Amino acid sequence: MSPRRLHLNAFLMGVGHHEAAWRHPRTEPALVTDVKHFQNLARIAERGKLDSVFLADGVALWGNVRHNALGGLEPLTLLSAIAAVTEHIGLIATASTTYNEPFHLARKFASLDHISNGRAGWNIVTSASEAEAHNFGIERPAHRDRYARADEFLEVVTKLWDSWEDDAVVKDRESGIYADTDKIHAVEHSGPHFAVKGPLNTQRPPQGHPLIVQAGSSPDGKDFAARHAEAVFTAQQTLAEGQEFYADIKARAVAAGRRPEDIVILPGISPIIGSTEREALRLERELEELIIPAYGVAQLSTILGVDLSDHPLDEPLPEISPETEGQQSRVKLVLDLASRDNLTIRQLIARLAGGRGHRVLAGTPELIADQIQEWFEQGAADGFNIMPPVLPSGLTDFVDHVVPVLQARGLFRYEYEGRTLRENYGLARPANRYAELAVV
Amino acid sequence: MSPRRLHLNAFLMGVGHHEAAWRHPRTEPALVTDVKHFQNLARIAERGKLDSVFLADGVALWGNVRHNALGGLEPLTLLSAIAAVTEHIGLIATASTTYNEPFHLARKFASLDHISNGRAGWNIVTSASEAEAHNFGIERPAHRDRYARADEFLEVVTKLWDSWEDDAVVKDRESGIYADTDKIHAVEHSGPHFAVKGPLNTQRPPQGHPLIVQAGSSPDGKDFAARHAEAVFTAQQTLAEGQEFYADIKARAVAAGRRPEDIVILPGISPIIGSTEREALRLERELEELIIPAYGVAQLSTILGVDLSDHPLDEPLPEISPETEGQQSRVKLVLDLASRDNLTIRQLIARLAGGRGHRVLAGTPELIADQIQEWFEQGAADGFNIMPPVLPSGLTDFVDHVVPVLQARGLFRYEYEGRTLRENYGLARPANRYAELAVV
Ligand SMILES: Cc1cc2nc3c(=O)[nH]c(=O)nc-3n(C[C@H](O)[C@H](O)[C@H](O)COP(=O)(O)O)c2cc1C
Ligand SMILES: Cc1cc2nc3c(=O)[nH]c(=O)nc-3n(C[C@H](O)[C@H](O)[C@H](O)COP(=O)(O)O)c2cc1C
Repeated sequence: MSPRRLHLNAFLMGVGHHEAAWRHPRTEPALVTDVKHFQNLARIAERGKLDSVFLADGVALWGNVRHNALGGLEPLTLLSAIAAVTEHIGLIATASTTYNEPFHLARKFASLDHISNGRAGWNIVTSASEAEAHNFGIERPAHRDRYARADEFLEVVTKLWDSWEDDAVVKDRESGIYADTDKIHAVEHSGPHFAVKGPLNTQRPPQGHPLIVQAGSSPDGKDFAARHAEAVFTAQQTLAEGQEFYADIKARAVAAGRRPEDIVILPGISPIIGSTEREALRLERELEELIIPAYGVAQLSTILGVDLSDHPLDEPLPEISPETEGQQSRVKLVLDLASRDNLTIRQLIARLAGGRGHRVLAGTPELIADQIQEWFEQGAADGFNIMPPVLPSGLTDFVDHVVPVLQARGLFRYEYEGRTLRENYGLARPANRYAELAVV
Repeated sequence: MSPRRLHLNAFLMGVGHHEAAWRHPRTEPALVTDVKHFQNLARIAERGKLDSVFLADGVALWGNVRHNALGGLEPLTLLSAIAAVTEHIGLIATASTTYNEPFHLARKFASLDHISNGRAGWNIVTSASEAEAHNFGIERPAHRDRYARADEFLEVVTKLWDSWEDDAVVKDRESGIYADTDKIHAVEHSGPHFAVKGPLNTQRPPQGHPLIVQAGSSPDGKDFAARHAEAVFTAQQTLAEGQEFYADIKARAVAAGRRPEDIVILPGISPIIGSTEREALRLERELEELIIPAYGVAQLSTILGVDLSDHPLDEPLPEISPETEGQQSRVKLVLDLASRDNLTIRQLIARLAGGRGHRVLAGTPELIADQIQEWFEQGAADGFNIMPPVLPSGLTDFVDHVVPVLQARGLFRYEYEGRTLRENYGLARPANRYAELAVV
């Protein structure tokens, strides 16, 4: 058996994950709508042999655009332009099952998979915010209903991806038969949320199904991941929490009839890299000094569902009993962080500014590599979602200085193992549910 | 005033517009899902200084895939990959207002416009087929209702495109102000079909609004075009019909308060090009011989809403009183064609095989150029949608042999006039409805 290998995604966010990144001289705020910037990032990640680039998304303008560089590009459109200038790296786009139709998403992800020769992945979200519902003329459905819809949504989408068998297209010019129509199937789906006849009007994707990614952290969310996801994104602050989450998801996957290795767990990490510890801490401090406190307080108030704008910045959080629907795990993470480290509001917003609840780690390449190795070897991670604080420099630093350390330690690939995203993740190509077993 | 100039789009369709193209040795049927094929076509069109590439679309598998090369890529995803390898050419994608949400389409076209630096266009369709409805769990809405929805849909989409004023993003690193939030607007749309709060979470597109294209031919469809479209696609067989349609649309535009030059009319033409007439006719015959009669009869039966499979191929059409909802103009076109030229069913399907009702013209580059010039100068066209029978060769032939003739005659550009699709079409950039007039 080949040694277990780390998986690393570049989680790309505008000009960086730090909320004040756009103010830092190492980047340029106009890049948030610049396709060349993202193409460049993907090329850097590919140079570092990273598994994929990942784009988060929501269908509303979130956060306070007065103080943050928002209003960028839609992920599927953007990844297609990135596919055109890369060859190996996976392309994972976020799309919501709450505000889309399965036919459209099945088709767009199938197209991206064809365009990229098998490199597409879908981060399935159920859309927790109310603002998103109001862009679609409805009230936000309840958490449980969103996940029920997501389940059926995924069933329809995978049926549509299977609606053309792999060998349906025969292209026989001589006889004039382009496709064997016995191998193209109406899916005839009919369920509580969807009625979809099919077939899809795009041929089966090269990967069979694009990679399925998920990031739920509620019990419903984790069960959804355990049933369907092949990669799970998560925000975990401590090794112990990471281990607990890791064991929990793997156990749920096993309970759902899958093998633990069928689901890859990827906590987020925002590495603030310096060639010395001092240099790393200096960059961290520079970013901290660019934070607009009013922005951080507003963000924190939104997460906690409590207005903190009149509360003194240099005092700890007031007593809070959270009721925000759908974001309980993030609320708990924030409250735990504040109480564990005894933080004032000012300190708490500085911690969140770097990674919105993801782990932020400032240090040398070796220190970052040590932490990655520890979590990987201590049962807290199969890999990481790398969240550079400032882009492109934070990604370049990771690729040029951390990746070589991980490679030298035998933890990370020197070359891509396969041709598709699935192959690089070591995941099987799904069988087609409509294909008849060959009669021997 | 600069001389009136032709506009030319490359209407790209898989491996060619002729239904038997995939069987012809000049192409390769595997190209229908090959992004490099389409990127190559766009580069050829750009070399010929064409205004744009255009992709048709539907949200169901139409036609008989047993005998035709179907199941290709979704247009928006594909055009984004094309944007990445081109610089000047416009990128027009078809998308339906009947089976989409305005927020999603506003965002995707805004993204494509950013990605391409102002080259996106949207061909608005209302989706005439029943098969499409069945992929979205509903019965096909009535023709009138589809157009009513389309009207409101476009209202919402343009509001969303305007929701960020052009100068909303100030990017002031010093003060920490990224955007002037007084210039980002909730659109607060509320109407019979849609309730959308906004703003969009993508900044205003470079063109203000991507180019609006339409191809309706019913009275509702033509009125929609007259109110909203900046380019109109149409299928016209004779100069007289072309002139009538042209005058009709321009008159409707004027009645809607616009100037005739605000709307560019582009009939389709499928040029079968040979260096001699003989060579052109030979290619036409080769393609004709590859037609599968059963396929043609099935297509014709679908258009006419009558089962013709038991009718003798070498006799004329039986008496038909068409009732098919939403396709009246195409039915009329087909019946006129059959009676005008006294065609048998076999002859009729051969005529339709080339252009599905669009004009097919076999001849030398000079003959094609003559016809283009005649329609352009005789008030039947502002330009053409070029529909090569076989791809890529049919497009290469047009660009290398017809374009130079049109250029030499002073009818077509030697260089792109502008940077954006709008600029090349000579159309104004729309004002932002939310921007306050500057106080002097
Ligand atoms: C790394 C990571 C990325 C995420 N990206 C998105 C995103 O792009 N869009 C989104 O709506 N939610 C995103 N989420 C939120 C999750 O999808 C999920 O809604 C959240 O973790 C709450 O879990 P629950 O839905 O099970 O309650 C992300 C979460 C994590 C950990
Ligand atoms: C050049 C051209 C391209 C068209 N492309 C599409 C298309 O991609 N998808 C589609 O559903 N309809 C397409 N149509 C059909 C028209 O959108 C429209 O439905 C049809 O002309 C009937 O007009 P009506 O809807 O006003 O009755 C096209 C028509 C023409 C002339």
